Amino acid sequence: MDAAAPPPALSLEARFEVIDLYTAYAETINDGRLEAWPSFFTEDCSYQVKARENAERDLPLAAIRAESRGMLEDRVVSIRKAMLYVPHYWLHMISGVRITGIGHDTIDVRANYCIIRTMQDRLSELFQVGRYQDRLVRQDGRLLFREKLCIYDSLLIPNSLVYPI
Amino acid sequence: MDAAAPPPALSLEARFEVIDLYTAYAETINDGRLEAWPSFFTEDCSYQVKARENAERDLPLAAIRAESRGMLEDRVVSIRKAMLYVPHYWLHMISGVRITGIGHDTIDVRANYCIIRTMQDRLSELFQVGRYQDRLVRQDGRLLFREKLCIYDSLLIPNSLVYPI
Amino acid sequence: MDAAAPPPALSLEARFEVIDLYTAYAETINDGRLEAWPSFFTEDCSYQVKARENAERDLPLAAIRAESRGMLEDRVVSIRKAMLYVPHYWLHMISGVRITGIGHDTIDVRANYCIIRTMQDRLSELFQVGRYQDRLVRQDGRLLFREKLCIYDSLLIPNSLVYPI
Repeated sequence: MDAAAPPPALSLEARFEVIDLYTAYAETINDGRLEAWPSFFTEDCSYQVKARENAERDLPLAAIRAESRGMLEDRVVSIRKAMLYVPHYWLHMISGVRITGIGHDTIDVRANYCIIRTMQDRLSELFQVGRYQDRLVRQDGRLLFREKLCIYDSLLIPNSLVYPI
Repeated sequence: MDAAAPPPALSLEARFEVIDLYTAYAETINDGRLEAWPSFFTEDCSYQVKARENAERDLPLAAIRAESRGMLEDRVVSIRKAMLYVPHYWLHMISGVRITGIGHDTIDVRANYCIIRTMQDRLSELFQVGRYQDRLVRQDGRLLFREKLCIYDSLLIPNSLVYPI
Repeated sequence: MDAAAPPPALSLEARFEVIDLYTAYAETINDGRLEAWPSFFTEDCSYQVKARENAERDLPLAAIRAESRGMLEDRVVSIRKAMLYVPHYWLHMISGVRITGIGHDTIDVRANYCIIRTMQDRLSELFQVGRYQDRLVRQDGRLLFREKLCIYDSLLIPNSLVYPI
């Protein structure tokens, strides 16, 4: 978007609702309540984590790809098993939430994320930074992610991409 | 909060007022105007800084604890004395401000903070990240902190917890 | 601003419009669409990047200074030439957007910025943190920067200040 492109119209209440969704999403992961993470997605969702280099070249390669809420639930089970012996904390800071499009029953959103990881006996570190390019839908009065595309700037492949981004 | 829990209702004006409080709080500390820091609290406030590990186990141990605005003012005096020979800058970035509860005359708020410290001849570094769990009240038309609980992710004990978080 | 100073009145719509401006500004730079960067400024703008130490002492020294949109356009051309062989990504995270004054046809704004740089084969790093002190005007229905003052905390002189801050 350049300066000439006005953001699409959305009521102020709806804008806050979108911001609240991202805040709740980050908080749920930060709190370590991983079992609640899939509840932010629709049943037949798309969740992908992709390197920026691939996203900009329109390559279909994704480091992580899930195509249903069930797959996200399976992922949480795997994470729980793998995490047993590596205690660490996460902090998602989300900024720049912007409505990029409004469809018949969808809202497209971009935002930045910055994930800070704190491991035992180490200083906090920038684990991953990037952007979300998401599509939201409303179901039973709640906004959910039908599509979440996480595009990370990092050129090194982080070793914990399995964790919710 | 999982995706199913809607945030409590608060007027849009009041929501911006809460956000403004956090912005002004951060700005005051970032500017180094420490003498104004206690003015964000009620006279009989609670201010605590606690390791996340202790907070999650409900341990009462706090690295820092103050129980009145006067104690915060004393703290500022101490900081001024200790700071004489160590010039450095702070940047509080606050995100994810969320209203978690509304009482008769209180507003409960959660938010994330990320404090970046810049010291002479060094690159900026992540000094401390964590979350606020606060209770606000309105006095004489202004929102103030009656309770501010700062829960930090860091597992190393930072050597400057005395500074306003 | 201390706790006693209420923020100037501005409609909620206008507040979101200001926030949107900063979001679009950051996004444009983060996406690498540098040619669109000058379009956020008025024709006869002021753009300065200054060390905090100099700003606080009211010294006129600025590391970077431009006095028209044309000068910003020239800068983009230079950056394009210099960037050919150093691929890296930028992430501007902007927080704490606060209206500090409203004039006849201007809006004064402060905000924090945190620029994270990701270079090939390295972890993401805090490149520069600081604050904006800006003056906005409306032209042809759009908000533009008439003045943008970027004050960075860093005491080391970063080697890429030429890049849009």
